[in-house]
Amino acid sequence: MNKIDTLKESYLQTKNQLSDHGKRKANILQDAFQNIDGQMNSDMYGKGKVIEEFQEKMATFLGKESAVFFPSGTMAQQIALRIWCDEKGTKKVAYHPLCHLEIHEEDGLKELHQIKSVLLADKNRVIELDDVLKMEEGIACLLLELPQREIGGQLPSFETLEQISIYCRENDIKLHLDGARFLEILPYYQKTSEEVCALFDSVYLSMYKGLGGIAGAILAGDRGFVEKSKVWKKRYGGDLISLYPYVITSDYYFDQRSHRMGQYFEEAKELAGYFNSCHDVSTVPHIPVSNMFHVHFHQAKDQVASVLTEVQQETGMGFTGYLVEIDEETCSFEVSLGDLYAELPKELVTRTFQLLDEKMMDLRIKTTSI
Amino acid sequence: MNKIDTLKESYLQTKNQLSDHGKRKANILQDAFQNIDGQMNSDMYGKGKVIEEFQEKMATFLGKESAVFFPSGTMAQQIALRIWCDEKGTKKVAYHPLCHLEIHEEDGLKELHQIKSVLLADKNRVIELDDVLKMEEGIACLLLELPQREIGGQLPSFETLEQISIYCRENDIKLHLDGARFLEILPYYQKTSEEVCALFDSVYLSMYKGLGGIAGAILAGDRGFVEKSKVWKKRYGGDLISLYPYVITSDYYFDQRSHRMGQYFEEAKELAGYFNSCHDVSTVPHIPVSNMFHVHFHQAKDQVASVLTEVQQETGMGFTGYLVEIDEETCSFEVSLGDLYAELPKELVTRTFQLLDEKMMDLRIKTTSI
Repeated sequence: MNKIDTLKESYLQTKNQLSDHGKRKANILQDAFQNIDGQMNSDMYGKGKVIEEFQEKMATFLGKESAVFFPSGTMAQQIALRIWCDEKGTKKVAYHPLCHLEIHEEDGLKELHQIKSVLLADKNRVIELDDVLKMEEGIACLLLELPQREIGGQLPSFETLEQISIYCRENDIKLHLDGARFLEILPYYQKTSEEVCALFDSVYLSMYKGLGGIAGAILAGDRGFVEKSKVWKKRYGGDLISLYPYVITSDYYFDQRSHRMGQYFEEAKELAGYFNSCHDVSTVPHIPVSNMFHVHFHQAKDQVASVLTEVQQETGMGFTGYLVEIDEETCSFEVSLGDLYAELPKELVTRTFQLLDEKMMDLRIKTTSI
Repeated sequence: MNKIDTLKESYLQTKNQLSDHGKRKANILQDAFQNIDGQMNSDMYGKGKVIEEFQEKMATFLGKESAVFFPSGTMAQQIALRIWCDEKGTKKVAYHPLCHLEIHEEDGLKELHQIKSVLLADKNRVIELDDVLKMEEGIACLLLELPQREIGGQLPSFETLEQISIYCRENDIKLHLDGARFLEILPYYQKTSEEVCALFDSVYLSMYKGLGGIAGAILAGDRGFVEKSKVWKKRYGGDLISLYPYVITSDYYFDQRSHRMGQYFEEAKELAGYFNSCHDVSTVPHIPVSNMFHVHFHQAKDQVASVLTEVQQETGMGFTGYLVEIDEETCSFEVSLGDLYAELPKELVTRTFQLLDEKMMDLRIKTTSI
């Protein structure tokens, strides 16, 4: 077994984990359905009380006229961009180089819609007003991902968002929010969901990141936009006869967790502090602005894997099952705070990070002396 | 309330129904999950025991190298046709004028892939060998829907299927099976699933028609085809982080109902006989070749609606909640046999059809005397 497989194996064996709400198991569905009346009618191709009520609830929460439930964010966002392109009569959108549509969707936007993407900003930082001002002509829609997940969940200032929004409105460019982790940013901005969404023409919200549902997404905007998105949802084969397994679980975990984002945010800052106190370890952002951050180790990946495996085995505390190599001397993994962190014995957390620091110090001595 | 709304309302009030397995309610999910271990791991983006084992089971059942679980048949079939078009380097497929892709998908195939459809055969009959022999050049794939749902579930002979299959192979045309109701035709052909699927290059199977699952579809074929379909599944946003709510229920109802198709077929023939014994009522096909058929009433829609409403109210037996107008003197609805029919008291069925016949006879007298 190589060092990364060993790391993964040791993570699977841990009793406690720092990240997330717990493992994705069948009881996530079973818990949500425990108090559902077996006589509740299924939704039928997007119609019916169970789906319509949840869509209305989400539209209200986001401060938009209308909302529609999608099986996935991938589908919802491609469709949003297509609608805005059709409206403007161009085939060009702008987003960050590490946007989900650019790197995780097998080029669905390009293959299914022949829409060209214009990449804004350096990949290691968020899009700023200046990037938008310098954007080429003919952009139908600008997509902003808040927080920017692939760089640890960074955010522009709220003032920047306001300025970008004004610029887009003045220049006939639609502004779309990739809100895969949207609720998670509200405590940092100290804004309501309506206040943030008011800056955008269309909004996507995921049901299974911070909220911890099973799958599904909400797309919201004005009524005309949402009605068009329903036609495309049918074209994609996303207008399933029954989506209630995802709708019911989304609603259940929304009610359970939407008000806990402030807690996750505070815990993220605390936990990042623990990481930053260790030798050759730092977080991006240094001080988190949501419930997430990336942990960077300034040592070679295989050696860091061995250190983490040892700490996981000795403490039973799970950090990660993988490492991404950034360069020969840097590797990283992602942390997203969820329900689990609050349940950890504080003493165990302290002891775990003491051990991590010691082993990272030993590693530095070893590598420096070679 | 108009006569059709009244019909619908009376149907919803009925204690018994002739068609289907029962209403689509939350207990369909709850029953299937009752014996699932809460610690069962979710699938993750198409990987994991729960989805992989079911895909293998379906590949084996269909006699194909490989199979993949899709959220919907709409998505699965568009993708199958796109793959075959790419392989041949043309943008043209052939199918029946009442094919699902032509009339129920908001032109997804054309809007998302710019694939042109060539319509074969008159819409009131199935595609025969002669239609295929006369097909224009450059067709990448021929889709056959078995049974042809929109015309009551008609079927060509098995010999015709064999001849079409041979012709397509000799002429470099892929043959795709729209098997939304595929298991339902095996008793009529007296063939195994492998024997029928062996005639086709790719096969789609629905999880929620005769099988009665919640949603979902299987697409099967050789390994290369299936691997390509997974890339497109991701592009469509169909590669959900978790599909297990649909996979578990599909597996549960497959085991429960896949061996009952012979029973549904026999019951369909019996029930069609009851309809055909009534005045001004006939079924298409006259003798069903699967679990389904259409019931045609040779009277005006509103008057038939009143008759059916009365019979439903007086007997508590549900026929239908809608009627489709074919012309001013003909209307119809669809029947699909499922678990419910076997549970009906025979005496009630007989009495219901006696009443229907009497009322249809009264209606004929009334309309003839005008």
